[in-house]
Amino acid sequence: MLHAPQPADIEAAAERIAPYIRHTPLLESEALNRRSGARLFLKAENLQRGGAFKARGAFSAVTALLQQGEAPRGLIAYSSGNHAIAVASAARTFGLPAVIVMPADAPAAKRTATEALGAEVVAYDRERESREAIGERLARERGLALIRPFDDPMVIAGQGTAGLEIARDLRRLGLAPQRALICASGGGLCAGVGLALRAQFPDVEIVAVEPQGHDDLARSLAAGERLANPPGVRSICDALLVERPGEITFPMLQALGARAVAVDDAAVLGAMQAAALEMKLVLEPGGAVALAAALAGEAQGVTVVVASGGNVDAPMLRRVWSQT
Amino acid sequence: MLHAPQPADIEAAAERIAPYIRHTPLLESEALNRRSGARLFLKAENLQRGGAFKARGAFSAVTALLQQGEAPRGLIAYSSGNHAIAVASAARTFGLPAVIVMPADAPAAKRTATEALGAEVVAYDRERESREAIGERLARERGLALIRPFDDPMVIAGQGTAGLEIARDLRRLGLAPQRALICASGGGLCAGVGLALRAQFPDVEIVAVEPQGHDDLARSLAAGERLANPPGVRSICDALLVERPGEITFPMLQALGARAVAVDDAAVLGAMQAAALEMKLVLEPGGAVALAAALAGEAQGVTVVVASGGNVDAPMLRRVWSQT
Repeated sequence: MLHAPQPADIEAAAERIAPYIRHTPLLESEALNRRSGARLFLKAENLQRGGAFKARGAFSAVTALLQQGEAPRGLIAYSSGNHAIAVASAARTFGLPAVIVMPADAPAAKRTATEALGAEVVAYDRERESREAIGERLARERGLALIRPFDDPMVIAGQGTAGLEIARDLRRLGLAPQRALICASGGGLCAGVGLALRAQFPDVEIVAVEPQGHDDLARSLAAGERLANPPGVRSICDALLVERPGEITFPMLQALGARAVAVDDAAVLGAMQAAALEMKLVLEPGGAVALAAALAGEAQGVTVVVASGGNVDAPMLRRVWSQT
Repeated sequence: MLHAPQPADIEAAAERIAPYIRHTPLLESEALNRRSGARLFLKAENLQRGGAFKARGAFSAVTALLQQGEAPRGLIAYSSGNHAIAVASAARTFGLPAVIVMPADAPAAKRTATEALGAEVVAYDRERESREAIGERLARERGLALIRPFDDPMVIAGQGTAGLEIARDLRRLGLAPQRALICASGGGLCAGVGLALRAQFPDVEIVAVEPQGHDDLARSLAAGERLANPPGVRSICDALLVERPGEITFPMLQALGARAVAVDDAAVLGAMQAAALEMKLVLEPGGAVALAAALAGEAQGVTVVVASGGNVDAPMLRRVWSQT
């Protein structure tokens, strides 16, 4: 059941979701090129529908279900926020009810955005309850289709469509990327975009970026098996707090020869400032880790930097700017 | 000499500048639609090369000069910042030196960006000196081509290319705009975009947006002649502090039947917050006045909102978020 998507699945997902998502811009800044010593191309997924790349995976999964003739009574998802918004948006688009299982400490802006899309939010305690168990129980009880945040081939294929766009835009400029910096938590974006880029640029290096203290992917890659984060470690990257790499995504990242690097909160806040001042983009903490890595010396030659999301609330932006 | 550009001049400018500028995205947000009671399409010119629409006019003027076989020894411009960055960028692109006459109180970020592009900055006192006189004298003395910020048909045609892109993107969605909200200071953007939109949508209303206290265009339109602002009025909109409407732009705006509305600093700060939280875009104060007007009840039906620039520095962003 849990097979890895192939490049053709990403192409098919791109066709299915084209009416619903945005081809986001790939932006370059001379100032950030100077600072990084490389040539950065920032994929602005904060400008994606719903403010994060997650719309790609959600619409990919739902359109695949509908194409197969399935008629769920509604959708359900568990998510710290961005996948929640994406699934709620897809549900509303297709006239389906949505239930979202969300941590009680999710940013208010993400909960508000999810509810504004008409979804029912079920809160859980991140430290003591299993969102997977709650999600699977509610799916069974209510006859809802569960859209997993990363361990679903159609979701991963959907996230990969960002990579297809990057490849197309770089080819138009006559460029091939040497490296791609992509945030990783469950690993769906990194695996999908990595697969799409590697299919077109066989030499591109895939570098996953994690928040410090949540370096489960780095440790898992070193150990050759999926390891979990220690409980209780805090990070401002609310979008990147999944406990361990995914069952499908981890072997994909191994096959891509990905390596993983970590960035701390201070580097993330600095990257959020740099994105605002030099790129005119608002990034959320989890959306800024790849740029943080690029500005910390991890960029090399033509480097793709995926800015995965921008769903941030006013208190976090006050914190970003109060330190300047 | 000072003739108004025609729609065909905008089409020609678009062809000349295509290799140098970005087709910026036209973005919609459900949250801002709800808040405004209209359907807003925000033209994200903060993502333009150099962080503002001004690259369009500068590249249009310079490419027109070069096409006519003129070989200036360099370029000169007077500007509070965004036109400075644009002319410096165009000069560097074509291997020409650039001199920029800039107010001593221009935002540090704009001066730094101008100098980083290799331009020589000549500071002047906004209250006591005439930037036009300084610019014209230096142009004569050094054999430089003066690129005026708005009273130049090729500059206005260049700014109008943003309107061509808006028209193309709206047509792709099968929509016609009822209204366009566009910031105005010298009036180059408003006249150019207004002309481009009106050529394709005969019924579109053109609404110029000014900072409160700098409502020279509103008073000029009412009086039927170009009136100046009283000296010494302050506004956070550093990009919109031109003393009076332009010689070419004012009759163009009259011919378009434009009306003008004003927004105060608090509304501008609120629009900068809304752009960040809902659109994930960083706007500078002058770049946010059209959105401020839209959120203050000036939007109607399908409404174009031009977000003209995003060149803001950290102290201003601290101010924006400290109030939340």
